[in-house]
Amino acid sequence: MEDFTYYCPTKIIFGKGTENKVGKEISEKKILLHYGGGSIKKSGLYDKVIASLQNVGIEYVELSGVVPNPRISKVKEGIEICRKQGIAFILAVGGGSVIDSAKAIAAGVPYEGDVWDLFIKDIPIKNPLPVGVILTISAAGSEASPSSVITNETETRKLHIRSDLLRPKFAIMDPELTFTLPKFQTASGIADMMAHVCERYFTNTSSVDLTDKLCEATLRSIIRNAKLVTNNPNDYEVRANLMWASTLAHNGLLGTGREEDWASHMIEHEISAFYDVTHGAGLAVIVPAWMKYVYKQDLERFAQFAKEVWGIEAASKEEAALKGIEEMKIFFREIGLPTTLKEMELDNQKFGEMAKACTERGEVGNFVKLSPADIVKIYELARE
Amino acid sequence: MEDFTYYCPTKIIFGKGTENKVGKEISEKKILLHYGGGSIKKSGLYDKVIASLQNVGIEYVELSGVVPNPRISKVKEGIEICRKQGIAFILAVGGGSVIDSAKAIAAGVPYEGDVWDLFIKDIPIKNPLPVGVILTISAAGSEASPSSVITNETETRKLHIRSDLLRPKFAIMDPELTFTLPKFQTASGIADMMAHVCERYFTNTSSVDLTDKLCEATLRSIIRNAKLVTNNPNDYEVRANLMWASTLAHNGLLGTGREEDWASHMIEHEISAFYDVTHGAGLAVIVPAWMKYVYKQDLERFAQFAKEVWGIEAASKEEAALKGIEEMKIFFREIGLPTTLKEMELDNQKFGEMAKACTERGEVGNFVKLSPADIVKIYELARE
Repeated sequence: MEDFTYYCPTKIIFGKGTENKVGKEISEKKILLHYGGGSIKKSGLYDKVIASLQNVGIEYVELSGVVPNPRISKVKEGIEICRKQGIAFILAVGGGSVIDSAKAIAAGVPYEGDVWDLFIKDIPIKNPLPVGVILTISAAGSEASPSSVITNETETRKLHIRSDLLRPKFAIMDPELTFTLPKFQTASGIADMMAHVCERYFTNTSSVDLTDKLCEATLRSIIRNAKLVTNNPNDYEVRANLMWASTLAHNGLLGTGREEDWASHMIEHEISAFYDVTHGAGLAVIVPAWMKYVYKQDLERFAQFAKEVWGIEAASKEEAALKGIEEMKIFFREIGLPTTLKEMELDNQKFGEMAKACTERGEVGNFVKLSPADIVKIYELARE
Repeated sequence: MEDFTYYCPTKIIFGKGTENKVGKEISEKKILLHYGGGSIKKSGLYDKVIASLQNVGIEYVELSGVVPNPRISKVKEGIEICRKQGIAFILAVGGGSVIDSAKAIAAGVPYEGDVWDLFIKDIPIKNPLPVGVILTISAAGSEASPSSVITNETETRKLHIRSDLLRPKFAIMDPELTFTLPKFQTASGIADMMAHVCERYFTNTSSVDLTDKLCEATLRSIIRNAKLVTNNPNDYEVRANLMWASTLAHNGLLGTGREEDWASHMIEHEISAFYDVTHGAGLAVIVPAWMKYVYKQDLERFAQFAKEVWGIEAASKEEAALKGIEEMKIFFREIGLPTTLKEMELDNQKFGEMAKACTERGEVGNFVKLSPADIVKIYELARE
């Protein structure tokens, strides 16, 4: 086990109707209310939030229009508003994109230079504004994570910042808010949370028995509930188990004491940056391709993954490993996700360019260090 | 799943030599250094802590002599010292007893009345002093928990207080500090952490699939490493997995969304209060006896426990349930713990008195509500 520091002070407020309590969790008197499109208005969530804020006399300035793969231009807009209006708290109402956008604004307000500097240079995040969250999608885990992923649309770049100071102050999680999510978005969220566990599970760190078992338990629970949610989108218990799993998959707990990988995310980020595809769907394609490319690095671990997560036993470790990877693809297909780039209608024209962008700061991944040539091969494995 | 709020802001600093960094984690200039007997001096830990504090110019006042089943008299002594000397931070160096004593002092300093009031009346904890921890025993989980259990030696009472405000600010966890623990203490700690998971696992809350699996994973890892530690007391990896498990078993995570039980702890606390036995050893006796008394409440859950934790399958659920309980007793015996009160040389003279004290505030437990008569029967089942 490796040495680690773990600090996750996000207060989780989980359950039915918890969104109605949001006003009481905020001590600031003027806030930025940050959200995406019209879905929170259509669902009635917007009205509940406004009522809760007004109940305690909190003034709010709205910034909506956050899109999936959130843009640096919107972040800059938010920074301007906060500075001009003296706002010291951001409430993000939405999924990972809205929360990531809020975190980037929070980090950017006190930073004097261009906020994109924080993404491309090693500048420590200092004194970010506090962020609160009302979560509407079980997926990204940003509600309790220390990171934010933002797309620079003019440079076709998707990069991240990371600091424990960016962990939200609170996360309000009402599983009922996810009932109306379309099947594809629910499934993409499931792939995202599973990928978050896999990035931590596939490690070269030895003797991580406890977190191995916790990773496997989390994956098994996600798979079980993913199979149920398709036919039971309004089942509170199924949605609740998935929602809590999405947070635990990415709040850092499952990576404690382990060297984490993150190659699959970086490889997928380029697909999202170049083609603006849904992140989780991109991961459903990339993670199994990555696995096929690297599994020989540790047959034992891949056989353990096959056995403990998918219940597969086979004559040899290699056979088990390959069956486990195949089972994951079958599962993604079952829940309605693409498992090839072809199904996503992406060609192979930009593989070289994407691989180059992906490795701009050096080889990616820790389980296996990947060069641009390796990444092109993974894109090719993902092709069909 | 039940609604819940989960807030665990303890910063975990885990790994070799982390105790040498303690000074840097404390911003106060004058602290109470709280510990037990001479073991931290013999091991050299005391000198390391003092050096780290002196390096950053922190002044310290010492209060040692905390005993297992920590006493309210020592807590009162600590409160007096903090008040008289204007101390605003407590550093606990030790295991659960020292940490619990530190938390009680922290809660008592700003409280104007007798600190024992906080244990017997429903008085909310307000503005406790911050507590930091250097952990030396993997067991109680107090390093990140919101509770403190204290014995009032003049009244033969062992009671607890609980508030998220009592969670330590930081917990420094160096598995090497546990290498020298005697076998019996190591084993008692293992029973304690397993009991902490079981108190959460045995619930009437339905649809708690994710936390069920996380509980089972944690128990399996504890069992695996418990079997290894006897012959490998200086194996860093084994000690590290046990140490991190002890925290996760009791920081509240495994109970999220579940009604918890806690009858076994309350029943054991009376044994500790009346006879001053080691808490974990008492639990090794009481938990299986409690299980035997209540298992018919939910055969399904006990059969799941037998299968997922102990790998037992049987013709009927009842048979599986009973085999699972028996397996747990065998395991406790294997690691060197008593599994009957007789082995602890306790007679049946005070069963009635203990059961009465245990239920002073009403029936205990949630999985099954237990009356004094029920508790006497559990003590009898635990007898031999």
